[in-house]
This record gives sequence, C-alpha cells and structure tokens, in this order.
Amino acid sequence: MAVTASDPDGKAAPTVGLAVLHLFGSLRRPHGPTDLPDDRAGAQGSEIVRAVKQAESDGVQVVTVAMLGHKSDIGFMALAEDLWRLRRLQTDLQEAGLSLTSSYVSLTEVSEYARGLPEEMKQTRLYPKLPPEGKTAFCFYPMSKRRGEVAEANWYRLELEARTELMVGHGSVGRMFSGRILQLITGSTGLDDWEWGVTLFGVHPDDIKECVYRMRFDEASARFAEFGPFLVGMVAPIESVLRSVLGDA
Amino acid sequence: MAVTASDPDGKAAPTVGLAVLHLFGSLRRPHGPTDLPDDRAGAQGSEIVRAVKQAESDGVQVVTVAMLGHKSDIGFMALAEDLWRLRRLQTDLQEAGLSLTSSYVSLTEVSEYARGLPEEMKQTRLYPKLPPEGKTAFCFYPMSKRRGEVAEANWYRLELEARTELMVGHGSVGRMFSGRILQLITGSTGLDDWEWGVTLFGVHPDDIKECVYRMRFDEASARFAEFGPFLVGMVAPIESVLRSVLGDA
Amino acid sequence: MAVTASDPDGKAAPTVGLAVLHLFGSLRRPHGPTDLPDDRAGAQGSEIVRAVKQAESDGVQVVTVAMLGHKSDIGFMALAEDLWRLRRLQTDLQEAGLSLTSSYVSLTEVSEYARGLPEEMKQTRLYPKLPPEGKTAFCFYPMSKRRGEVAEANWYRLELEARTELMVGHGSVGRMFSGRILQLITGSTGLDDWEWGVTLFGVHPDDIKECVYRMRFDEASARFAEFGPFLVGMVAPIESVLRSVLGDA
Amino acid sequence: MAVTASDPDGKAAPTVGLAVLHLFGSLRRPHGPTDLPDDRAGAQGSEIVRAVKQAESDGVQVVTVAMLGHKSDIGFMALAEDLWRLRRLQTDLQEAGLSLTSSYVSLTEVSEYARGLPEEMKQTRLYPKLPPEGKTAFCFYPMSKRRGEVAEANWYRLELEARTELMVGHGSVGRMFSGRILQLITGSTGLDDWEWGVTLFGVHPDDIKECVYRMRFDEASARFAEFGPFLVGMVAPIESVLRSVLGDA
Amino acid sequence: MAVTASDPDGKAAPTVGLAVLHLFGSLRRPHGPTDLPDDRAGAQGSEIVRAVKQAESDGVQVVTVAMLGHKSDIGFMALAEDLWRLRRLQTDLQEAGLSLTSSYVSLTEVSEYARGLPEEMKQTRLYPKLPPEGKTAFCFYPMSKRRGEVAEANWYRLELEARTELMVGHGSVGRMFSGRILQLITGSTGLDDWEWGVTLFGVHPDDIKECVYRMRFDEASARFAEFGPFLVGMVAPIESVLRSVLGDA
Repeated sequence: MAVTASDPDGKAAPTVGLAVLHLFGSLRRPHGPTDLPDDRAGAQGSEIVRAVKQAESDGVQVVTVAMLGHKSDIGFMALAEDLWRLRRLQTDLQEAGLSLTSSYVSLTEVSEYARGLPEEMKQTRLYPKLPPEGKTAFCFYPMSKRRGEVAEANWYRLELEARTELMVGHGSVGRMFSGRILQLITGSTGLDDWEWGVTLFGVHPDDIKECVYRMRFDEASARFAEFGPFLVGMVAPIESVLRSVLGDA
Repeated sequence: MAVTASDPDGKAAPTVGLAVLHLFGSLRRPHGPTDLPDDRAGAQGSEIVRAVKQAESDGVQVVTVAMLGHKSDIGFMALAEDLWRLRRLQTDLQEAGLSLTSSYVSLTEVSEYARGLPEEMKQTRLYPKLPPEGKTAFCFYPMSKRRGEVAEANWYRLELEARTELMVGHGSVGRMFSGRILQLITGSTGLDDWEWGVTLFGVHPDDIKECVYRMRFDEASARFAEFGPFLVGMVAPIESVLRSVLGDA
Repeated sequence: MAVTASDPDGKAAPTVGLAVLHLFGSLRRPHGPTDLPDDRAGAQGSEIVRAVKQAESDGVQVVTVAMLGHKSDIGFMALAEDLWRLRRLQTDLQEAGLSLTSSYVSLTEVSEYARGLPEEMKQTRLYPKLPPEGKTAFCFYPMSKRRGEVAEANWYRLELEARTELMVGHGSVGRMFSGRILQLITGSTGLDDWEWGVTLFGVHPDDIKECVYRMRFDEASARFAEFGPFLVGMVAPIESVLRSVLGDA
Repeated sequence: MAVTASDPDGKAAPTVGLAVLHLFGSLRRPHGPTDLPDDRAGAQGSEIVRAVKQAESDGVQVVTVAMLGHKSDIGFMALAEDLWRLRRLQTDLQEAGLSLTSSYVSLTEVSEYARGLPEEMKQTRLYPKLPPEGKTAFCFYPMSKRRGEVAEANWYRLELEARTELMVGHGSVGRMFSGRILQLITGSTGLDDWEWGVTLFGVHPDDIKECVYRMRFDEASARFAEFGPFLVGMVAPIESVLRSVLGDA
Repeated sequence: MAVTASDPDGKAAPTVGLAVLHLFGSLRRPHGPTDLPDDRAGAQGSEIVRAVKQAESDGVQVVTVAMLGHKSDIGFMALAEDLWRLRRLQTDLQEAGLSLTSSYVSLTEVSEYARGLPEEMKQTRLYPKLPPEGKTAFCFYPMSKRRGEVAEANWYRLELEARTELMVGHGSVGRMFSGRILQLITGSTGLDDWEWGVTLFGVHPDDIKECVYRMRFDEASARFAEFGPFLVGMVAPIESVLRSVLGDA
C-alpha cells in the first residue's frame, strides 16, 4: 500500500487496484450570479491547471472533460492509490473556485464474473491507462442491479451460475463495439449511491449512443439494470477544456 | 466529419446526423436575488443576441423560445455537427449571465423502426430545418421506454417485430396532427438521463395538448412510455424573446 | 384568436378557451439572505400591484393568494387568451423582485367525458369568472391518471365507456360540495409535468379538506389518481395579500 | 368563526377545530454563506421572540423547538382558528431573518374512526393544549395511506368497516405508550402533500423511537402507511431554543 | 439520565445508550461562490477545532472525517447522552462557517434480535468507543426494511421468528469481515427519514466495498433492505482533516 506525502495518516488505499474519483463542477463567471472579481477571472483557470498538473506529477491519472449542459462545466476522472491524494486534488479544485455539482467514488476491480480472465486483462482493469487515444466522446453514469419486490426481478436472489451466464452475454454485446468504445466499470457498492460507475470513451458520440442502446436489450440490462444520471462531454487536455468552457476574455 | 474552427481537438461529431443541445436558463434581473449591476442590464441581452448570431453564422441552427413558468426564462434548441461548437454556444450564453436550469443532449436519428422510410424522409429526420414556420407553440420533454419488473411491462424484453408493430401504430396517431404539429424525436440513450428527447412545434398550444393526450391512449405509450418534465413556451426570434422575458427598462 | 399588443408574433392562443398560468413565488425581504436594499422595500410591493393591475386592464383575470408555508409567499392564477400576455405578467412580477418557486401551465377545457353538458356549462368551464365570491380558502394541485405496470391499474388501457362511467361517479362526489367548493380542472397534458391542474376555492379550509378526502374513496381516484404537491392559501385582493405577507414597515 | 384584527377578509377559519401551521427554518449567521450584518446578530433573535409573543397574545398556541441536523435550526408548531393570523406569524418570522426550509399545513380533526369517542376526548383532539408538560423530545412527520396498484395494498378501496377495525388495532398500540408519548394527528388531505401530520411529544427520545418502531408492525401501518421526512428536536421556551441554536456572542 | 451544563431544560437523553448525531458539511472558501473574507480564512478552521475540543471535554465522542466528493467536505459523528449537548456542537460548527449539507439523528441500541447477547457485547453496542484504531476508511448510510405492496416483500408482515432467523444469517456475513470492518448500527425509526443508520470503519476502502457487496446477497438484504445515500471519507484527527480539506494558504 503506497503512502504519499499528502496522506496525513498513511492508510487510505485499496489493497489492490486504484481508487477513482469522478468530480463534476461549475465555474464562477464574471457576470454569473455571484460576480467573479476581476482578478480572479484568469486565476481560476490557471489554478485549475496547476491542481491537475500537481496531481499528475504525484502519479495521479487525471482525465479532463468539457461537459455539455446545465449539470456541469468541467469533469475530472482521477485515479490514484491513495484516497488522501484524491481528496487533495478535490480541495485544490474547490479552492480555485470550482463549485462541485456531482461526483462519484469507486474502486477499479476485477468482477467476480471475470475471475477466469488472463492476468494481463485483469491488470488492465485494475490499473487502466487513461484516457485512451482518439476517443473524444465521454460519458459517465452510475448503475445498480435491480432488487425488485418479486424474485424474478431481483438480481441478488439469483445463483452465481445464473448471474455469470447473464454477465457473459452482456459482455459479448460490449465487445461488438471494440475499437469504437472503451468501457471502464468500477465498483462502488458501499462507497457511493449506486453499485457501479460506468465510464465510456467513444470515437464519436453516436458510438456511445448505439452501444448503450444495444445493451439495453441484453437480458442482464433489460431485466436487472437501473441507471443513474448520465454526464456527457468531450475529453481534451485541461488547457483545451478551459478554453472551451471559459469566456474569450 | 466536419471540423470547425471552434473544435479544439477536431473529433466530436456524430458519424451521421446532427448533435442537438437543448438549453434552458434564467436571466439575472436588476432586482432579483443577486441584484444585476446597472451596466449589465442591457449588456446581458445584447450578449445573448451576439452568442446566437455567432453560432448561426457558424452554421448552427438555433431555435429560441420564451419559456413559461418558474423553470426557466429562455430556451435554446441548437443543432450542429460539432459538439465543441455547441459547447461554445453554451459558454457564451453562460458568460452573458444566463444561469442554466435545465438542458438535454441528444442526436438526430432514424430509428430502427423507420429503416424502410424513403431516403428523403430519413434526411429530414437527420438534418431537419428548424424552426418550422407558423408553429409558435413549443414543447420539449424527454422520455424512456419502461423497463418494468414484469415482462409484459418491459419494452426491452419485446421482440423487434412486436416493437415495430407498436411503433407503427404510435406513428399513425402522430400523423393525425400533421399540419398542426411538427414533432422531432432525437436519441439520447447513453447521452442524457432519458432515452429520447421529444420537441414539438404547434400552431396553437391546444394542438400540443390534444396531440400528446391522444398519444397517451396508444398502446406503445400507455403500456411502455415514461415521461420526464415538460418545458413549454413560444418560439420567436431572439430579439422578440428577450423583449418578452426582460423588463421594459 | 385574439392578438394583443403584447404579443410579439401574434400566435400563441388556444383555438378555444383560455390559457392558465399559476405562478407561486417568494418575496425578497430586508433581512433575508440577500438583504433587500432599503429603497426596494416599498418598491417591490407597489411594482407587484402595478403588474397585476396592468394585466387586468388588458383583460387578464388574476386571482391573488396569500400562501401558507415554506413553498411560497404569494400565488397568482392568471387566465388569458394569449400566452404572450401571461409571459408579460410573469416577467413584470420577476422584475419586481418575486422569485418564482413553482408554476403550472394549462388550458381551460371541456373534458371528453363532459361532451353532453349543456352549452352554458361548457362555456363556464372554458371561460370561468374568477375568483368566486365568498370562497377565501384556496388550493392548487396537479394530478395525472395512473399508467401502472398492470393493466387494471392503467387508466389509459381502459375503454372510453369504462372511463366515462368512472368519471361520472367521480363528478357526483364533487357535486355534494356545491356551494362550499368551486372546482376548476384545467388540462395540461403536453404542457406541464402532470396531466391536469386542479384549483379549488372553498368557503372554509375544512371544506377543501373534506372534499378532497371524500374523493379519494371514489374509484376513479382510488385506483387511478396520482397527485403532485398541494399549494394552499387565502384569496384576497393583491393589496391585502401583500399586507399579509410583507412586514409592517 | 373568529375574526381577528389580522384577518384582512374575515374568512379563513375551519368550521370546527383549529388550523395548524408547522414551520421549520434556518437562521442567518455572522459567518454563514451570506454574512449576517453585525447589527442584525442580536436583532434576529429578539424579533423572533417578539413574533412568538405577539402571536401568543393573540391567542395562538406556539410550540417552539430546537431542531437537530441539517434540515433546520428552529421549529414552530402554531395552532389558531384563523389562517390569516398564522400567516402573520410566518411573515414576522421571515422578516426577522428566518429562512423557511420546510412546513406543513393541517387542521385538527376527529377522524371518521373516532366518531364514537366521548365528547371530551373529541374536544381534546379539536382544541389541544400544547406543549404537554415534561415531554421534551419532539418529532413531526407527515404520512399517507397507500393507494397501491393492487387492491390489497390500497387503503381507499377498503370498506369503512375494515378500515375501522384496522384503525382500532392501530390505536391500541399507541395507548401502550400513554404517559410516555403524546400524539396529535392532524388532517391535511387537500391542504398539504401528505394526508396527515403526526406530531409526537415524548419524555425521552427513545420513547419516540420505540413507539414509532412498534407501530410499524401494526397491520394498518405495515400494509398501508407511507411516511414523509422526519423532523426531530427538543421542545423549550423560545428563549431557550434560541440560546441553543445561536452562537454565544 | 445525565444533565449537562448545556442542557437548558434538563430532559433530552435516552433512557439507555447514547444519542448519535452525524453531521456533514461544506466549508466556505476564499474564492468560493460567497468569497470568504480574508480574516475568516484561518478563523473558520480554528473555530471548528475548538468546537470539537469543547465537545470532547464535555464527554462527547466526536469522530471527524475528511469526506470525498461533492456531498460534503467534513463529516462529524458525535455521540453523547444529551441531545442538547449535540445541538450545541452543531451550533458551534455552523457558527464557525460550516454549511450543513446532510445529517442523521439516531440512538445506539440493542436490537430485538440481539436480546440473547452477553451483557458485555450489549454494552459495546450501547456505549461504543469510537473511532476504532487503524480503520481509516469511513462509510455512513441509512437504511430501512422494505414495506412492499406484496406480503412476501414486506418485512413488517413477517413473524418475529422469521425475522430473527434472517437477521442471524445476516450477522454471520458481517462476522466474516471482523478485524477488517467495524460496524455500528444505530436506530432511527421515528427520529430520521430511514429506520437505521449504518456506520462502517474499514482498514481499507475495498474492505468496505467487499463487505457491503457480500451482504447484498444475504436474504435479509436482498429481499428486504432499502438503502439511502452513501457518504464516504477518511477518519483522522480534526487537525489532519482540516489540513486535507482546506487550502494550503
């Protein structure tokens, strides 16, 4: 278990894999409801850049995203061993002026249905290298397996064998989009309001739409999946993201 | 795939059709809770006009709407190939002072039940020309197909044939309103919180009411449709919209 | 279709009946979270009065209500042919300082179950004269008919005949309260988040309670009705309402 | 029907019993997000005391409560004949700086299952004397009877006889806590978002917990009750409440 | 029943065990939406430290947590006999500038299924010593037992024997994580919006994830548990927590 300089007590890393913090936030604006002071107009952006660079120099992977719509302006997907280092990134972004509107806490994992995978594929899930090249379209959503009132709609009342069969079928839909979509599923049972976080990187936005649409008909989804809010944007280096979501001035 | 000057990384357009961004927001007001400064009272409106005009000169279609009720003051429905250009419009509107209260991200599409349509009708769905003339009444709402606990209430457990039959019946209700209502359905599975966005343009507000009411009895809706919030207003050029939603001063 | 001076584009009225806009809002206060400036303390109230009077002089009916509880301070129920005129009223109230917390958009209508009514009663539903005299207690709530997963709990899967029978029974409960309660049901399918808006005017607050309570046992409600939030207050002229909801100073 | 000096139009009282307004709110604080000005730090508290005393001198019963948790700082349960007098109390508290976060509107009542009670007990329900002595622990929550999709889970489809039997059983659980708990159930069908408001006064906080927990197993609750948010605190004179929820300075 | 100096009326403690107040809040920041004044930047932190120390010197146990994500910056879990003393802590934290975003009110308890436990274990549940050493990962979530429409999904319609059997099975899953997880379940029926609060302390964040994930398959959870929001962070002394969630300046 790694202990970084930013870890006050030295003990907040998973025993295997990485901790993942998705952060989504809104910027302050010169003519927004709280009138950003003049001397902060430039500082806000440069402090956000600095927060990201400092995290990266500490070994944190940070994917930055220009978000679309009213839910947020910028998204960050940060992966590190130490939760304290991720909290430091969160603090630095908040201190720069970012107002957090949404977030998600999860851990990379090899699911119980993937125990038979080759070791290399397991390592890719536990220690992914992000963002993938050439996949600008970004989508994050959380999901859970249904725990319906009737047994046939309750994932957690199925035997392991039945669940494994359904998950294998589900995976084969995903593989149809290989090359067009990179999907990372991270576990959050006990860590956030849903049981998994799904992060998709697509070449085109309609790759994401088609992939998620196709999966809805898969039995594992159709009978058992429940979805949280979808957050969508475009992956780019933090400087490009800021250029896109901030004013020209 | 088009790459416009505003696209920092050149890669955020669907392979076919247009990206659609619905934005709904509230204006700042001189005597509102955050007291708009005097010199901003006029600037807010003129900067909103400029943002719309600049987008239009870049080939973005922008429908502008005076909204009714507490949910928002102005609505924008913007269509473009490049998500980065849509984000630029969003940024410009926010910088002008608009506070976003709601939004929707979707793509134009030819649904899987409409594959047999004549090519021209497909093109009209993929590349619509908006707003339609003479249809002032505007309504936007998102919807999904039900994924109920029991199979008979789960759209995604139906065979393609059964779904197609239901959708054909559904379409015939819509055609009864041709001339009074223009309906555009855009796909958002994986892109926003519901699976489709529905935008209606009506000659009269009761055309919209009657059309949606009639459709509720159609089996595809009655058994399988779930609806999000409804946003309603009047389409007009941006200058007229602002005259309507801003004070006389 | 009437075109008023305030209608920028001349086309936003229903083909028959009136458009109805319910607006509920909170006032700014001298010692509230945003500290209303001294010179606005009186102006806020007088500008609200002026907005109401101007609308009335344009032929808009405006019922004004002192609301109870945290949801809002004042309620307005405005009826007019032209949606643009209703939006002007909304804008004027917002410009005066009112912060909208809730609203509802609907149209007066003769329901499909009331087609056999005498013409005069239909006209009363399409063109009501409000507020009724001597009925101070006010209640507004939106509602929909249930579209349950099972057929027997899905209003929209019933035949017209069955629906008509249920609605006739429902109406007879309402008639038991004639003289104590005036009820106006306006249609909002496709226009707002629920399918109908219900506005009740009662002589006493317990008339409203007893009437709504009795109706819950009627089969049309018990099996099929779903209710939104209830907003309650006292009808009075706008000057009395303001005296009640503003400080003495 | 009483008409008080504060009633602008003289007509907003129930024909029998009292109107009840529960108000819950947050105080402004010197270092809170809106920085209470120095000269308001003391004024806020003394104006709240004055509002309560004035209401009491007009015959309004006002129970004041120091609330626990993020939902609110202070709770007020006010009972009076005239809704206009309750609205005046609300206005005075808001003018003092209290920001309302929650509320409930209801009327005292003798339920249809209690028609056979001795007249004195009915009077106690219609005109209760509050707060009871020695019962510091306070809880308020709203509730409704379930209107489920299936008949067996739909209270409003039961016959009066079956409902009466269930309510008698329910009442007997309540009586086990007599002396430790005083319970007041007020009716709000048509007046607020739930059908009843339940106010509990307990000697100890675990009296409240045990009483509500026991009732959950009663058939009337287990099959038919739906509960809203619970608001909890300690009853005390308004000066003690303010001492507890305001800073020492 | 203990009466502390901070108890204005001497009567707000449970007859046995401790009252528990979970508080979660956001800090004000120099460049946040409300621009913390310069002289408050340091004061906010030191006043929070003082509030915690004063409570501890009065015998209150206070666990402090650096939280992850947009829901809050700091969490406090405070245990004491007297609710008035817990309210004083809440007031002191609010006066320091903490803006409460979430909270939970509960009482320690020996559940009805644990009546046969050795006395010492009961005492540990009623009077726990927190935080446990070496368990940095923190999770809090509220939960209820399902009261479904059908009897087989309604916990409160099961006999005590059946419930006891299910709870014994449930406990045995928990015991598999002994040493890695400390779990404290406190009762909140009638005191807050859910029926129990669950606080988990883990050596590693994946201990928490694995433990909660495993429990989902246990029948008592799979059929009957409903979960509220999950709040996650790292336990540390208040000074370390503040160092982590505040800026370096």
